Amino acid sequence: MSRYRVAVQVVPRRGLLDPQGKAVADALHTLGFGGVAAVHVGRHLVLDVDAADEATARRLTREMCERLLANPVTEDFEIAEVASS
Amino acid sequence: MSRYRVAVQVVPRRGLLDPQGKAVADALHTLGFGGVAAVHVGRHLVLDVDAADEATARRLTREMCERLLANPVTEDFEIAEVASS
Repeated sequence: MSRYRVAVQVVPRRGLLDPQGKAVADALHTLGFGGVAAVHVGRHLVLDVDAADEATARRLTREMCERLLANPVTEDFEIAEVASS
Repeated sequence: MSRYRVAVQVVPRRGLLDPQGKAVADALHTLGFGGVAAVHVGRHLVLDVDAADEATARRLTREMCERLLANPVTEDFEIAEVASS
C-alpha cells in the first residue's frame, strides 16, 4: 500500500454558461486588464490516496470524480497527475 | 498581439485550515472511499489573454493573481501553463 498524490481538474463543460468565469473577466476588465478575452473557473483538487499501485489510485480517483467530485451534467474532469508521495 | 491560454492554480496555503477539503474527504469516506487520506480544494482558472508575447502574458497573469484571483493572506497561486492559442 503506497500513498499517491493525485491532482484533478474539474471544469465547466465547454459551451455551457460559466457565470463565475464571466464575473471574474468583468472584474479584471474593471481593474484595467483589458487584454483578457475570457476566463473559465473550475476546481483544482489534490487528493492523497492510499492504493496498491498507481493504476489503482487512478481508477479510484476516476470513480470519486464520477460519484462526487464532478457534476456529470455540467462538468468535465481530468486527472492531471498521479505522483507517488 | 497574440492570444495565450494561461492555466492558473490557486490553492489554500499549506498549513492553513481547508474546511472545503475536509468536507470533501468526509463525504468520500461516507461513500466508501476509505483510502483517501486528505483532500485539498483549490481553483483552476483558464484565462485567454491577448499579449505581445508569452513573457508579457505571464507577467499580466501574475499581476491579476496578485490583485484579484488569489487571496494573498490565505492562498498560493501557480501559473501552470502558458500556451499560444
